[in-house]
Amino acid sequence: MAKQVLVIGGGVAGSSAAYRLARDGVGVTLVDAEHEGQATAAGAGIISAGRVLHASEDDEWRRFFQDATTYHRQLVLDLASLCGSEIGYRVVGELLVTPGEGGEARLADLASRLEMLNATWRDPQIGTVRLLSPAEARKLFPPLDPALGAVHMSGVARLDGRLFRHALQSAVAQLGGRRVSGEAIIRGRAGGPPVVELEGETLEADAVIVAAGAWTKRLLAPLGARIPIEPQRGQIIHLALPGTATASFPVVSGYGSNYMVTFPPDRVVVGATRETGSGFDCRATAGGVQELLTRALGVAPGLSCASLTEIRVGFRPVSADERPILGAVPGFEGLFLATGFGPSGLTLAPYSAALVAAAAGGTESPGPREVDDILEPFSPGRFGPAA
Amino acid sequence: MAKQVLVIGGGVAGSSAAYRLARDGVGVTLVDAEHEGQATAAGAGIISAGRVLHASEDDEWRRFFQDATTYHRQLVLDLASLCGSEIGYRVVGELLVTPGEGGEARLADLASRLEMLNATWRDPQIGTVRLLSPAEARKLFPPLDPALGAVHMSGVARLDGRLFRHALQSAVAQLGGRRVSGEAIIRGRAGGPPVVELEGETLEADAVIVAAGAWTKRLLAPLGARIPIEPQRGQIIHLALPGTATASFPVVSGYGSNYMVTFPPDRVVVGATRETGSGFDCRATAGGVQELLTRALGVAPGLSCASLTEIRVGFRPVSADERPILGAVPGFEGLFLATGFGPSGLTLAPYSAALVAAAAGGTESPGPREVDDILEPFSPGRFGPAA
Amino acid sequence: MAKQVLVIGGGVAGSSAAYRLARDGVGVTLVDAEHEGQATAAGAGIISAGRVLHASEDDEWRRFFQDATTYHRQLVLDLASLCGSEIGYRVVGELLVTPGEGGEARLADLASRLEMLNATWRDPQIGTVRLLSPAEARKLFPPLDPALGAVHMSGVARLDGRLFRHALQSAVAQLGGRRVSGEAIIRGRAGGPPVVELEGETLEADAVIVAAGAWTKRLLAPLGARIPIEPQRGQIIHLALPGTATASFPVVSGYGSNYMVTFPPDRVVVGATRETGSGFDCRATAGGVQELLTRALGVAPGLSCASLTEIRVGFRPVSADERPILGAVPGFEGLFLATGFGPSGLTLAPYSAALVAAAAGGTESPGPREVDDILEPFSPGRFGPAA
Amino acid sequence: MAKQVLVIGGGVAGSSAAYRLARDGVGVTLVDAEHEGQATAAGAGIISAGRVLHASEDDEWRRFFQDATTYHRQLVLDLASLCGSEIGYRVVGELLVTPGEGGEARLADLASRLEMLNATWRDPQIGTVRLLSPAEARKLFPPLDPALGAVHMSGVARLDGRLFRHALQSAVAQLGGRRVSGEAIIRGRAGGPPVVELEGETLEADAVIVAAGAWTKRLLAPLGARIPIEPQRGQIIHLALPGTATASFPVVSGYGSNYMVTFPPDRVVVGATRETGSGFDCRATAGGVQELLTRALGVAPGLSCASLTEIRVGFRPVSADERPILGAVPGFEGLFLATGFGPSGLTLAPYSAALVAAAAGGTESPGPREVDDILEPFSPGRFGPAA
Repeated sequence: MAKQVLVIGGGVAGSSAAYRLARDGVGVTLVDAEHEGQATAAGAGIISAGRVLHASEDDEWRRFFQDATTYHRQLVLDLASLCGSEIGYRVVGELLVTPGEGGEARLADLASRLEMLNATWRDPQIGTVRLLSPAEARKLFPPLDPALGAVHMSGVARLDGRLFRHALQSAVAQLGGRRVSGEAIIRGRAGGPPVVELEGETLEADAVIVAAGAWTKRLLAPLGARIPIEPQRGQIIHLALPGTATASFPVVSGYGSNYMVTFPPDRVVVGATRETGSGFDCRATAGGVQELLTRALGVAPGLSCASLTEIRVGFRPVSADERPILGAVPGFEGLFLATGFGPSGLTLAPYSAALVAAAAGGTESPGPREVDDILEPFSPGRFGPAA
Repeated sequence: MAKQVLVIGGGVAGSSAAYRLARDGVGVTLVDAEHEGQATAAGAGIISAGRVLHASEDDEWRRFFQDATTYHRQLVLDLASLCGSEIGYRVVGELLVTPGEGGEARLADLASRLEMLNATWRDPQIGTVRLLSPAEARKLFPPLDPALGAVHMSGVARLDGRLFRHALQSAVAQLGGRRVSGEAIIRGRAGGPPVVELEGETLEADAVIVAAGAWTKRLLAPLGARIPIEPQRGQIIHLALPGTATASFPVVSGYGSNYMVTFPPDRVVVGATRETGSGFDCRATAGGVQELLTRALGVAPGLSCASLTEIRVGFRPVSADERPILGAVPGFEGLFLATGFGPSGLTLAPYSAALVAAAAGGTESPGPREVDDILEPFSPGRFGPAA
Repeated sequence: MAKQVLVIGGGVAGSSAAYRLARDGVGVTLVDAEHEGQATAAGAGIISAGRVLHASEDDEWRRFFQDATTYHRQLVLDLASLCGSEIGYRVVGELLVTPGEGGEARLADLASRLEMLNATWRDPQIGTVRLLSPAEARKLFPPLDPALGAVHMSGVARLDGRLFRHALQSAVAQLGGRRVSGEAIIRGRAGGPPVVELEGETLEADAVIVAAGAWTKRLLAPLGARIPIEPQRGQIIHLALPGTATASFPVVSGYGSNYMVTFPPDRVVVGATRETGSGFDCRATAGGVQELLTRALGVAPGLSCASLTEIRVGFRPVSADERPILGAVPGFEGLFLATGFGPSGLTLAPYSAALVAAAAGGTESPGPREVDDILEPFSPGRFGPAA
Repeated sequence: MAKQVLVIGGGVAGSSAAYRLARDGVGVTLVDAEHEGQATAAGAGIISAGRVLHASEDDEWRRFFQDATTYHRQLVLDLASLCGSEIGYRVVGELLVTPGEGGEARLADLASRLEMLNATWRDPQIGTVRLLSPAEARKLFPPLDPALGAVHMSGVARLDGRLFRHALQSAVAQLGGRRVSGEAIIRGRAGGPPVVELEGETLEADAVIVAAGAWTKRLLAPLGARIPIEPQRGQIIHLALPGTATASFPVVSGYGSNYMVTFPPDRVVVGATRETGSGFDCRATAGGVQELLTRALGVAPGLSCASLTEIRVGFRPVSADERPILGAVPGFEGLFLATGFGPSGLTLAPYSAALVAAAAGGTESPGPREVDDILEPFSPGRFGPAA
């Protein structure tokens, strides 16, 4: 009989793990608690290796990002041929802006560094790098401050977290996987993998993948397993420009950790606060909304008359060292984790979860090396014993 | 200099008129009051000639419907090549069901009548007509009552009113038309077409097309023109089936004047009440929601656990004889109407508004005959003098 | 037979007029269009003569404000004895703050001027005036900036527009008045007062009072009457401090035209933008929300973690000279206006509308002098002929 | 030093326990996870012993209900003198209706049984029992079916769960208790009461009261304690009758387990589904809303044109024998429960939680006997060993 794997968590990580398992012929049940505040459902994602390439000195980490985006491109193609519905992915490019004093010099410096990097890495998720005049930048993103130039990267894509998760779960169903709703309680079992209680029902399997994002710690508590992962609140604002088709506007970023990304037909999404220590308080706050609006209007005053139509709140899972937590939990048979993606979940989770799925299901590596080698630096064991 | 036309009303009628004018090189300004309760924005449309073909004995009226759907198909193709964004149109087919006593006999009768009609008319908006067993019907629309068979018409399409209107308005902008927001007041002028006051500004033009739906009567009041048109409230419910991709489900209808139509990724839209004498009260009511849910669950009990996610309210414009009101208003120079589509606005308005646009702009007929001949039975003058 | 008066408009002005008429034995029908964006429904009011007393040099205008607040106090008492339900009125006091450079000096100056004025006017709506230290101010309004002192006026009251309007309309019903919903169209009639068409029905009366706020201009258009009144958009934000009982917090004002006022159980309402030229666009905007939050957090940083729970939008009616428009329209028999209160509707409209009701109904003056004398400076005729 | 007690859960049970402890001088910290779906926040309560008195043969259970309502009355008085804000409690009476065939006979029978019971028990929460004619009943509740008579009990009160909880928590703060927000994780400790982890912080105390409603099972999982308690979903609909003051309308019940209860200024609340096995799925469903509306319009057709303004969802905690679970958990030092109130939380929880508070804090019994004697039939141990 085929192996059976339980995946706890219906966000992009859990859905991606379930998809990979179903695709590879492993029996899979996806358990989704449908928590308010799921990071994926709030997420307005940008698929870009650019940020990491120019921000990090860590070659291994950059390599991981590149492998993740390579996997992502293939996944989008596979889903498009499987599903009838929209995936929510589109290559729109990105404008990097540098408001404030000395902005022009910083911009020129950024452009040359990115061009150099790009010459080495040739990442399609970056594409062509060009320095744009204020007029050129504003043509692409009309609400922009008329005084701001920009660096343009043509290959950056945006991703709608809700549609993407939906496409993954539809593919799981089509490939014979099962999806159930409910709050799982995981309990240990002597001499075997954990079992899962789900509102009365008890589910058993050969392995359990916990991809529960910010809720992971609480799920592991009944096992006595401790993993240093906490929620970081992100507030995201949806603006609308009635009568303006925003679908082809590029992503705008570079002003602090904030960004703007559009959705059809007329939305401009302004993200996102990074509120460490927030707990699970899922309310939009006066301070968070003020920060986002002040920064967005600072670089794009043309948004002043846009409608404020929605505020979303999500909880990113952030580990003690801000890197993902991936793979088998030492000391707990058949228990795997795939979480801790912080603000990069929509980019990193599909690949990361496919790696953990391969480890749990005993199938082929989705990456360029053996699964265990790739996962080693992200092991749950790196924080000390979990038990 | 090119002619200038003002179009009052940003629903599907006004947007279609403005699109046609811009396409034909006429200068156009579209004035949109963005009223809550616009019928187009609430509308979950079905593009189908079937209902009229089998329901009406009036050949002229059936011919008008057919010409309207022929124009509609071409319009969708034109928009798709103009716009990058989604138009919200998809051919999904339709299931006609006949719940209640004697339902099977009524169904067989309906199928044979439709097949006969189809043999004569060959309307692509009907497509192939087939009688389906309950199991076949349920395969297409899983929440359906397992005891219900259906007649299937393969060519019926659905249309998302909001996306379609947005695509039309984007096309207007692309073709050089102008769009302004605000509450227009129309005033008469001795020896010329009316002028329009818009929050301070005064707009003049060679002709004014009033396509203001249920608000038409109020707009004409300052001119002293009286047209017998009243709002008919329609309440529409949006259900969601999380984890179920509903995008390819067919339309379901035939149970009273109600219907179900889906939207991606997981919505099932249940429409619509027909509340004559409602006035402009834009609230969802206990009675309306109860009627819609009771009828929908009656034919599709599988929707019982669907989420109720949204209730929309729109006001259909209905004339004294329930037919559209199209063309020049006798006694008022340069004043044209395009309204009164009742529950068929998304189907009829694009063609009807194109006819009125041609009359106002002096351009070529979008139909098979001269514009004046086609519009004659729908003239505002048929109710007696307007002044 | 008793006189019959039609009142168009269900905000605080129309409801107050209808109440006064019903109280005085005049037959009254109140027609309420229930427009989205009604200023009263959005309003978080402050009943205070303080602002006017220290801001204006115009003795007549100050006297009018004082008479209005005197009438207001009596009205609140009368309603409380008539109605079982809540009126939404409470004396909570007000803190005036003066953030920014030189704030302390400005504050001391403000306190001395208010004390002097108060010595002359002795207005209970001001009460006792005291200069508070930052610690004293913060004790009353804990989220306040710890560096800000304040001037405290003990007699200022707050008023919830929705509850107050509801109480007035309940009282009208109790006193035998009639209330109908719908969009009225007013038409002239030779040799008599105007008639009102209401979705089919025609209503006649001895007089018509138009108290339709920002919608007044449009209502008068069919009569050919022109009155210079335009909508001014106000956006208002509702914050919540869960676990904090805010009901007894004072009003905070003095920072620009903004203010904060609380509602039970835990709300802090932040008002309001003054957007002249807005038209009737009833959407919350990025720029408006940013302005309100930035100013509120500037004086009360403790609100940073408050939930943002609601954004309301209302349209204040503002006349060409920013004073109310009250009384008979010259040249139109039986036609009266009660509108144009701008940001002071909740304070001024009850008294003003009672004056107009007395003029239209031929009853006793609610003020200290003859109705015609009091209304003279506010006559619709002051802008030139209406016809 | 005073004893310290931690209370987990900010609903009516936890807030009542915290209030009692603070009142009695015990140090208390209330931890509130602010879950969506909290039963108290959704709850539109009726404080009535009538249902139990006539429905149950169990004298002990009836006595417990009576003691609970006696305590409730006193609590309301105490809170009213402590708090400035509204408590949300009002005696409005109740109409029992018996629609359907044989309804009149059933009604007469019900009236006589209630009168007899009342003669014995003399419960102020019942008051006077009278059989009303349809006209009398409709005078009290105008939307009622004109053919329905009713039994009237004058002493029944309604309670707004949100306001009541807020008043309790304000009183806790005023009496020196502490309130914190967050998701608690409870962990066992050798030789002592459990400790609580709260987003980083570790809290210790002499005792822990878990009053977490439907979430109790999940909270106890890390301790290895198993308690048979599950969520039962209740959907509740809010209707509005604009222009109608509903504040003094009586409660209407007797048609199945459904009821109607009003809130000022114009709401009629229709409750509540009882969906056993629902899990924590917090969505309004088509089937639930249809059931509530169909039953409500069946007895009160006058609500047909009421606005549907809100749908709330709450999760009642229901134990395996449908009785509350109260008191110390055998085998776990310092661990107490106060949960399992099912549909009677607003009535039973204040008294029950006060009993558990007395047991945990070592203070005086709030009831007529020793705390341990009263709690004995509700002990967590009655389902077998928890460990």
